[in-house]
Amino acid sequence: MSNPSLLILAGDGIGPEVMTEVKRVIDWFGAKRDLAFDVEEDLVGGAAYDKHGTPLHDDTMAKALQVDAVLLGAVGGPKYDALDFSVKPERGLLRLRKEMDLFSNLRPAQCFDALADFSSLKKDIVAGLDIMIVRELTSGVYFGEPRGIFEEGNERVGINTQRYTESEIDRVARSAFELARRRGNKVCSMEKANVMESGILWREVVQKVHDTDYPDVELTHMYADNGAMQLVRAPKQFDVIVTDNLFGDILSDCAAMLTGSLGMLPSASLGAPNADGRPKALYEPVHGSAPDIAGQGKANPIACILSFAMALRYSFDQGDEAARLEAAVEKVLADGVRTADLLGEEGVTPVSTTGMGDAILAAL
Amino acid sequence: MSNPSLLILAGDGIGPEVMTEVKRVIDWFGAKRDLAFDVEEDLVGGAAYDKHGTPLHDDTMAKALQVDAVLLGAVGGPKYDALDFSVKPERGLLRLRKEMDLFSNLRPAQCFDALADFSSLKKDIVAGLDIMIVRELTSGVYFGEPRGIFEEGNERVGINTQRYTESEIDRVARSAFELARRRGNKVCSMEKANVMESGILWREVVQKVHDTDYPDVELTHMYADNGAMQLVRAPKQFDVIVTDNLFGDILSDCAAMLTGSLGMLPSASLGAPNADGRPKALYEPVHGSAPDIAGQGKANPIACILSFAMALRYSFDQGDEAARLEAAVEKVLADGVRTADLLGEEGVTPVSTTGMGDAILAAL
Ligand SMILES: CC(C)[C@H](C(=O)O)[C@@H](O)C(=O)O
Ligand SMILES: CC(C)[C@H](C(=O)O)[C@@H](O)C(=O)O
Repeated sequence: MSNPSLLILAGDGIGPEVMTEVKRVIDWFGAKRDLAFDVEEDLVGGAAYDKHGTPLHDDTMAKALQVDAVLLGAVGGPKYDALDFSVKPERGLLRLRKEMDLFSNLRPAQCFDALADFSSLKKDIVAGLDIMIVRELTSGVYFGEPRGIFEEGNERVGINTQRYTESEIDRVARSAFELARRRGNKVCSMEKANVMESGILWREVVQKVHDTDYPDVELTHMYADNGAMQLVRAPKQFDVIVTDNLFGDILSDCAAMLTGSLGMLPSASLGAPNADGRPKALYEPVHGSAPDIAGQGKANPIACILSFAMALRYSFDQGDEAARLEAAVEKVLADGVRTADLLGEEGVTPVSTTGMGDAILAAL
Repeated sequence: MSNPSLLILAGDGIGPEVMTEVKRVIDWFGAKRDLAFDVEEDLVGGAAYDKHGTPLHDDTMAKALQVDAVLLGAVGGPKYDALDFSVKPERGLLRLRKEMDLFSNLRPAQCFDALADFSSLKKDIVAGLDIMIVRELTSGVYFGEPRGIFEEGNERVGINTQRYTESEIDRVARSAFELARRRGNKVCSMEKANVMESGILWREVVQKVHDTDYPDVELTHMYADNGAMQLVRAPKQFDVIVTDNLFGDILSDCAAMLTGSLGMLPSASLGAPNADGRPKALYEPVHGSAPDIAGQGKANPIACILSFAMALRYSFDQGDEAARLEAAVEKVLADGVRTADLLGEEGVTPVSTTGMGDAILAAL
């Protein structure tokens, strides 16, 4: 039997540096745990634009559709700000999401005990926080037509379309309920049904999926503006949050920042299962390309390493190995090993990106 | 000369209770400061629906267009949840905003010294916080067409349209720059220009208004998801934030919650100036109708009273009288007078809604 396959797209900014540490971790699992992967690497974002004039080459897209999982670093940077919308680094990522049909984006907002002091929130509000945001990722205002900038009378008008079909809402709701069953068994769905018809349909379909197939899971609905408030006020009230593409973008970033350590947070974007039962999947850190610190050995590779742990769990059914890797990260943090983003306490050991990789490999 | 005119729409839930205290404050200004108003009262939201079968009667709409300023309490409640979209309490408020053309919604997020402990954020992150969010209020996805739930193939699709013309962006940008000049002279504009064409146009027009007429004001641009993060991480970096209707809804609620005391925050919604130079205007607290505590004398009337202070400043050019009222509120808080939402510290004096009104009148 051939090894499971991975496509690594390190991308821009700190992407390549953090991915270097992930590759060492992947090698470790091959050498020590008999879990070898066939790894290919390619370009995405600005790096792909620089070489091919497009943020995602068709060949890369084809590879992404063939492998068992994609690991992505980060895309974007000021160098590409002036590019036309159609070839911006972000379009490469959005094309991957759309063509792989990765409709369910899992974004854990978890507060690591050793790091609770880094939050701008009071410690008792965030210590032990463990929320999972499920963001719809292939529809809504990100992809709806018509869109563009048009002439109208003697001025221009900018238009985007929020658009959700019942089946699009149905499938992401299911993935949220499934996840909730393996966690705290609670789902809160967020929209603006008080002002948007797409939100009315969203609420109705989520409720119906619940009543039909997941009556055992606790379901509540909340307006997205109140959701933002409640995340700041008392985030621990939530277990799983399910919401649309645009609200999910904002609310998941808000939730991520509650933990105070963005450099720690992974994400998984999952599609429908293939013939072999594995979902199409892309894993990436929540943080961006951080061009200001790129190339200086300052980046924290943990978010990207934990994204690989999510791959072990969700794509390769290796929950125990994922837990092993997560435990190694927790141990390193408990030992006081810190990259530049996490300095500030007394008695910690500052390390570079590579130093953090070394420490995690040692802990494994 | 006739007195300036006010239309009071107390609305639902705690709206009527908090408005009772505002009316006492209005009377005080008439009696003691020679600032009398002609006050009329009418219904909005669920209260209007109960009487007229519509959340805003045409006669009320006509009055709102005639007076110098509208004071609104709050709309909505579970009693009205099952109503059809077209007659929900919220529609009354949205109709007022649209027909009065109140395009500029000012939402201060201010942290009162005496109350900094109520924030879920660390005290040093929020103490002294003073942000003004300028939210576009009459366009975008709240009002764009097409909208609705449609049949498509054999399923339904929910559609809303985000839509901004150059002139709509231009006018709200101007109001943000004008405000910034009277404050910290900094504007941060938020959109998702990396994924939405309407955001590209937004950014371009805001930049052009700046370069042409407000080059002295510092302007930055930020993606709205990063904006949510930065509000949580380090809110004091902001002075004025300008953003669209939907992002403004979420980001202003997030910012409001940073202060920890929603019961304190007023808002102003301003339109184009009339012949007499006064903008059409509606003032309302940021908090909602809080049906769970309605009718129990527990509500905090300060947000609504401070909304009247904003009316004094923005509609009646009585900045000194506004400051007098704001100082009275600050004094009462410094004296430890607290409604139910603000209890928890040692040595404070708990009061009812009326008790808070008494204390503020005494301080005046
Ligand atoms: C980079 C950008 C296109 C993207 C988005 O808006 O979805 C990012 O903010 C995210 O959340 O993954
Ligand atoms: C009540 C509702 C229609 C309203 C909105 O969404 O604008 C409210 O949330 C607000 O922010 O004023």
